[in-house]
Amino acid sequence: MLSFPELIRKKRDGETLTDDEVKAFVDAVTEKTIQESQIGAMLMAIWQRGMVTTETQTLTRQMMLSGDVMTWPDEWSGRVVDKHSTGGVGDKVSLVLAPALAACGCKVPMISGRGLAHTGGTLDKMESIPGFNINQSADRILQMLDSVGCCIVGQTKTLVPADRVLYAIRDATSTVDSLALIAGSILSKKGAESLSALVLDVKFGRAALYKDLRSAKELAMLLVETGNALGIRTGAALSCMDAVIGRCVGNSLEVMESLETLKGRGPEDLMELVSTLGGLLLTMTDLVSDLSEGRRKIYDAVIGGAALSKFQAMLEAQGVANQTARSLCSAHNDYFTVLRKSEHQLELKTTSGGTVGDVDGLVLAKILHKLGAGRSKAGESINHSVGAELLVSIGQQVEEGVPWLRLHHDDRVPTDEQIRCLQDAVCVRADTHTHNTHTVVKELLLPQK
Amino acid sequence: MLSFPELIRKKRDGETLTDDEVKAFVDAVTEKTIQESQIGAMLMAIWQRGMVTTETQTLTRQMMLSGDVMTWPDEWSGRVVDKHSTGGVGDKVSLVLAPALAACGCKVPMISGRGLAHTGGTLDKMESIPGFNINQSADRILQMLDSVGCCIVGQTKTLVPADRVLYAIRDATSTVDSLALIAGSILSKKGAESLSALVLDVKFGRAALYKDLRSAKELAMLLVETGNALGIRTGAALSCMDAVIGRCVGNSLEVMESLETLKGRGPEDLMELVSTLGGLLLTMTDLVSDLSEGRRKIYDAVIGGAALSKFQAMLEAQGVANQTARSLCSAHNDYFTVLRKSEHQLELKTTSGGTVGDVDGLVLAKILHKLGAGRSKAGESINHSVGAELLVSIGQQVEEGVPWLRLHHDDRVPTDEQIRCLQDAVCVRADTHTHNTHTVVKELLLPQK
Repeated sequence: MLSFPELIRKKRDGETLTDDEVKAFVDAVTEKTIQESQIGAMLMAIWQRGMVTTETQTLTRQMMLSGDVMTWPDEWSGRVVDKHSTGGVGDKVSLVLAPALAACGCKVPMISGRGLAHTGGTLDKMESIPGFNINQSADRILQMLDSVGCCIVGQTKTLVPADRVLYAIRDATSTVDSLALIAGSILSKKGAESLSALVLDVKFGRAALYKDLRSAKELAMLLVETGNALGIRTGAALSCMDAVIGRCVGNSLEVMESLETLKGRGPEDLMELVSTLGGLLLTMTDLVSDLSEGRRKIYDAVIGGAALSKFQAMLEAQGVANQTARSLCSAHNDYFTVLRKSEHQLELKTTSGGTVGDVDGLVLAKILHKLGAGRSKAGESINHSVGAELLVSIGQQVEEGVPWLRLHHDDRVPTDEQIRCLQDAVCVRADTHTHNTHTVVKELLLPQK
Repeated sequence: MLSFPELIRKKRDGETLTDDEVKAFVDAVTEKTIQESQIGAMLMAIWQRGMVTTETQTLTRQMMLSGDVMTWPDEWSGRVVDKHSTGGVGDKVSLVLAPALAACGCKVPMISGRGLAHTGGTLDKMESIPGFNINQSADRILQMLDSVGCCIVGQTKTLVPADRVLYAIRDATSTVDSLALIAGSILSKKGAESLSALVLDVKFGRAALYKDLRSAKELAMLLVETGNALGIRTGAALSCMDAVIGRCVGNSLEVMESLETLKGRGPEDLMELVSTLGGLLLTMTDLVSDLSEGRRKIYDAVIGGAALSKFQAMLEAQGVANQTARSLCSAHNDYFTVLRKSEHQLELKTTSGGTVGDVDGLVLAKILHKLGAGRSKAGESINHSVGAELLVSIGQQVEEGVPWLRLHHDDRVPTDEQIRCLQDAVCVRADTHTHNTHTVVKELLLPQK
């Protein structure tokens, strides 16, 4: 076996590492027998030189094998599914999709993450519900999938320990956005969930990791290929992330919007994402015969209330008091009896009349982050109540002086500069042409049968 | 000030770091306020993307300022000089040059290094002399320069601490051979010596860091430019390093050959290197009017015995018993009464007759390294007595069956395979044309006045 300096030299010079060499690196990371400086240098060499498909597949598999790999009852075979998103603004898809899939007969061990920088995290959203516990043992996860069909949990300590080490170092060394390292990190965790099928929501646009469709598609193709090589039927949707998904951003507010959606009153773009991503998964599990049947089945589960029942059962299974869960899932929409409301609400008004042409989701997310909705480094606490509600939608005709954004904040008060930036984030055009309905999903990548 | 991940990102993307950013990095390395993984990633990013001239100059200056900077009496102004070599096989130039320069009126605070891998180190050579102490305080160095004019010492702990950290990590992360990092490491130490003038022996060829003249010249030009920017009059010689300098390789044997040279019986190539490098330095100190006068002055100091007296005084000043120093420096050549001789000597004989066309210095050095003459990692002990004497010179006519190499070894006995490699390292050509005299120095780079 080569020494670590020699292994680093190979990658530094753009050579391809053998399976044994990739394994030696991942093992050493897991067992802490390689110096941190060597990990940093190797990650930078991988960032600079990339990895070929086989290296990425081996990296992913070895990371997956660095810890526990979950096992499921044989009778669930083909039906254990999950979704992963590359991160967006107002992305509450998981909260609706997990119970909808469970209602359609799938088992959904949704192992989610927390928000970092401007993107939100599903775990943070769920934790804005009093009593919700994201820390669940492997045994408890199995029980919940058996009884409810879905759960939303954090990564356990024994799952993919190599990723925990590598991710912290990638974050510190500006080597996060490497295709091979992204694929390894996402898919090793999904591999350790022993999924039958996986759908990836790869976002592109202003508020996404990748700004254009082309580069997002490159990642999506790598993820689909690597996921399938790992034995998971993997598909992907390329979806636009310029503005906001739905109308709410911020943890508590997104829970409210998810519940409204589960009660059949959700925004169109969120319903589109949920039904397309869910439909794709149902297609890959062979529970339906084609995508349109899959989409309809998910849509019906949401509109018909079956997904809401699953959501309520999941809340109760994960520690929320029965009365609280019942209150949240009942027909009314007075969520602030359960969820904490911020001290202050501030409405911003349009400064001209016309058609709402655009809303800059990135600007909105960054300002909410500064007001306490997000964290700048792992481990920081956040304010679940901080957020914003869009009061207009893209394409809508508005007069001058009508409220377009309701900002929820506490003691961190938005500065004049932040207000100015927010006002610039909405673009109202003088023309009065109505725009076409906004379609979020631009392209689908399906696994080859 | 940017965060470290952002600093790494800039260099990762090939951007130029500002003076403040380079300083922040070096300060953090010195004060250990940056993670080792971040140092590893930054070094790899520098390796991949390089540094522009101003970045390299700032890196060098900030590394220099990371610890103590020596100060000298005003009356030495313009005469404090040193030489640095990029490493070769049989390179005992310093042992002859330091006392020769002292004999010409220079002050030579020669802070040297140890050998690593196949290249030897001046400190190891000097330590093969019983009693010689390379650890000297700044005060003692000042005293020795005052009384003798030269010393050969190790780096003190307080001199360029940033280099100690960076060098260890470069070694572990395969980022040693980066032009900017090489320049920073070499010249920060020379800067901390507060030199008036510096000459660099940049070697190229089979047994050198750089294999061809072009890449060695690229380094030499950067070193000359960076050294002059640091306020040191800096020149360089590009010298060929294919075979061996002189005839002896190995620590004790090289001390013997240096003493023979100081007694006026040295090999031609060594004398050429010493007088050219020394002549260049004298030219830069304005102690002579041109290079040929400088060369002659150094030559005379060696041949006339003035350098030998300085060498003897240096030995005594650095802890060698007077009687030992006197014995080594007396007219005889029976050095083994003082230096330890290895247990075994093995003579290899030519397998054909003809002209000695070439000797592969790298093969020879690597085998001696395995027999104990060198170390594979810093801190390992070595066997000073292991080495080899070339018994023929390039261009010499030889018969079949005459001894061409005398190998000195102890309990590590050369294997049959090693003997075969050594036999292949000498090339005897059937033709009987005599070759031109071998000139070592190919090109000189002088500072612009």
